[in-house]
Amino acid sequence: MKPLGPIPGGFDAKDGELVIGGKTASQLVREAGETPLFVYSRDLIERRVADLRAAMPERLAIHYAMKANPYRPLLEFVADLVDGLDVASGGELAQAREAGYLPREISFAGPGKRDAELREAVRSGVTLNLESANEADRALEIGRQLRVAPRLAIRVNPAFELRGSGMKMGGGAKPFGVDENKVPELARRIVDAGADWRGFHIYSGSQALDAGAVIEMQANTLELAARLAGEAGVSVPHLNMGGGFGIPYFDRDAPLDIRAVGAALADRFAALPAVLAGTRFAIELGRYLVGEAGVYLTRIVDRKESHGTTFLVTDGGLHHQLAASGNFGTVVRRNYPVAIARCFGAQGEEEATIVGCLCTPLDRLADQARLPRAEVGDIVAVFCAGAYGASASPATFLGQGPAREMSV
Amino acid sequence: MKPLGPIPGGFDAKDGELVIGGKTASQLVREAGETPLFVYSRDLIERRVADLRAAMPERLAIHYAMKANPYRPLLEFVADLVDGLDVASGGELAQAREAGYLPREISFAGPGKRDAELREAVRSGVTLNLESANEADRALEIGRQLRVAPRLAIRVNPAFELRGSGMKMGGGAKPFGVDENKVPELARRIVDAGADWRGFHIYSGSQALDAGAVIEMQANTLELAARLAGEAGVSVPHLNMGGGFGIPYFDRDAPLDIRAVGAALADRFAALPAVLAGTRFAIELGRYLVGEAGVYLTRIVDRKESHGTTFLVTDGGLHHQLAASGNFGTVVRRNYPVAIARCFGAQGEEEATIVGCLCTPLDRLADQARLPRAEVGDIVAVFCAGAYGASASPATFLGQGPAREMSV
Repeated sequence: MKPLGPIPGGFDAKDGELVIGGKTASQLVREAGETPLFVYSRDLIERRVADLRAAMPERLAIHYAMKANPYRPLLEFVADLVDGLDVASGGELAQAREAGYLPREISFAGPGKRDAELREAVRSGVTLNLESANEADRALEIGRQLRVAPRLAIRVNPAFELRGSGMKMGGGAKPFGVDENKVPELARRIVDAGADWRGFHIYSGSQALDAGAVIEMQANTLELAARLAGEAGVSVPHLNMGGGFGIPYFDRDAPLDIRAVGAALADRFAALPAVLAGTRFAIELGRYLVGEAGVYLTRIVDRKESHGTTFLVTDGGLHHQLAASGNFGTVVRRNYPVAIARCFGAQGEEEATIVGCLCTPLDRLADQARLPRAEVGDIVAVFCAGAYGASASPATFLGQGPAREMSV
Repeated sequence: MKPLGPIPGGFDAKDGELVIGGKTASQLVREAGETPLFVYSRDLIERRVADLRAAMPERLAIHYAMKANPYRPLLEFVADLVDGLDVASGGELAQAREAGYLPREISFAGPGKRDAELREAVRSGVTLNLESANEADRALEIGRQLRVAPRLAIRVNPAFELRGSGMKMGGGAKPFGVDENKVPELARRIVDAGADWRGFHIYSGSQALDAGAVIEMQANTLELAARLAGEAGVSVPHLNMGGGFGIPYFDRDAPLDIRAVGAALADRFAALPAVLAGTRFAIELGRYLVGEAGVYLTRIVDRKESHGTTFLVTDGGLHHQLAASGNFGTVVRRNYPVAIARCFGAQGEEEATIVGCLCTPLDRLADQARLPRAEVGDIVAVFCAGAYGASASPATFLGQGPAREMSV
């Protein structure tokens, strides 16, 4: 038996069946037409943002990193909840504009920005988080051509890292941002070139559950921003302090203590150095805002025994849920939280392995899990499916096509 | 420094630049309009099939497993080279029919086949490789409803495995096929039900480079098929012997010795047991037919140093080449064969790490590789991109969209 991850809060049962946003899983599938289906709960996203605002200093703006989930209705819904949006490509920028975000609310980070992407950002007045001196030069040149002062910030590659983070984006050699020691000269040059100087973007890691590590990272981030601004002799109109807030996916993962993080940040904000006194601060969160609000529903097509193992074969799989299958950024596969929708919260009765419909042994949604007995036709719910699910999976693999998506 | 995988044969240089199918990389990109671009060489696929036919016994049919690469023009081209096609979903079946394959040339394997998929296969006369007794019952019932004798084979989950294979699909508890000991009863039942009995599908692994392991697997496969047919008292009109032929991706990988495999198989065919005397034999190959014929071309957008590491940032990445980034079915990331197209075959001059444009540290195309010095604008070629590339990668991730594809 292998443990399942913890089911996130906020999900109820009605007559034993999983309810999302007031509707049972089978109702939702009927409305959508078919499994596999991603369901995103607006209510849970709203509550998450409210809890976060309550815990964080009022001065801290909250941005949504749309890479986590670009589903259009969700993007539109989140627009009214957050203070800004972070995009990672020209494609995301276009989607954001279509969803109604204003250029001044958007910042654009990501290595390898093409000229066309820089041009669109400069033209529309989106903030560019610059990843290199070369990118700075190109953005400034495009600004000259368009006779627009480009809105520019420098993404810093910090020497520190986010301890215990699932994914390190800072510390040592990285393709992201500009090494600390090269930042002051570049900042000076950007300001002198007449750009609309926005400040710094310092992102050092993601998916941390340890409040102590996040607190330390935020302290380091503030200190670094102040030091770099001082060395460059520039102001810091805006500081994007990155993200890093994780969600529990696996057994024994405990939620991040955001109150502790918020309290420590409030203390820091109360004692800011002069150079940051007028700065507008933001954190950018993707997974933390939407990850736990999403559930992936997939139907059992076959139930079979092989050499003593019970396999529940579903109509979904890694083509929609690459991360849950353990094939995206994880070395050792562990089980996400998973349940049988018809008997949500019921005791486990048997050990079963849930697989997808793809003809590859990689396609595994739950390995040797203790579950209520499930039959063909039952719906399997995979939780923590709100971030890096549909958009981060190979939907065309084996001709399967994308999953349906809905927000409720 | 970390070694690169071996560049496959068949690629030349013209004035130092990589040539694919008679055209330089930069010509191909101009014709396609932009990078990133997958280029598939028809000539190399044709040569590969010819070499294979020369090495294998004439009696052995060669099927293409389209999961490896479903690009329409490639699928159409391969149709004239092979004797059959294996599909893994209703989606692939529809694509195959559109590409001109006839139902009798097609077999359909894959766990979790939905009723609609079974219905389409039965209706059109495609062979179903049954994954379970439940699936057999459903297919027979659909046959009765449609008044069609369904073409049915049993996919066997063999107790043996393919030694040293990259991906094991047999041996022990598996979601694929029917355990050996349950096969005779099921085969008898299918024949008695009046189905158009096709025989067995025995697939035990993929991506093997050791001829000894493949020879052993094929011997085991023939022996198992004969034993099961004997126990069931059924004939074996057709035996799909699976695939398993690997290609070299990584340093020190050596090509599979297909002559040794073919010679051993010819010996086996010369001494077949009576029950297999009239059997039509096939192997199904995907990666082996098309993998080395494909090259992924992506342009360098930025060149930057961070803490002493040179990063070449490209406009491509794991959203097109998930496997090359080390995030699909591999535990330890190793470098695929990679080259700078402008100076193909030139000596390495520096150590560089090639990354994609995605804002994630997972997006790495070559790690600490020794390469000729490359500049912004240069094209990077990632080899072994003909299989499990475009269709097996999360193309929508971070709003990037799919790569272009062309066959030459």
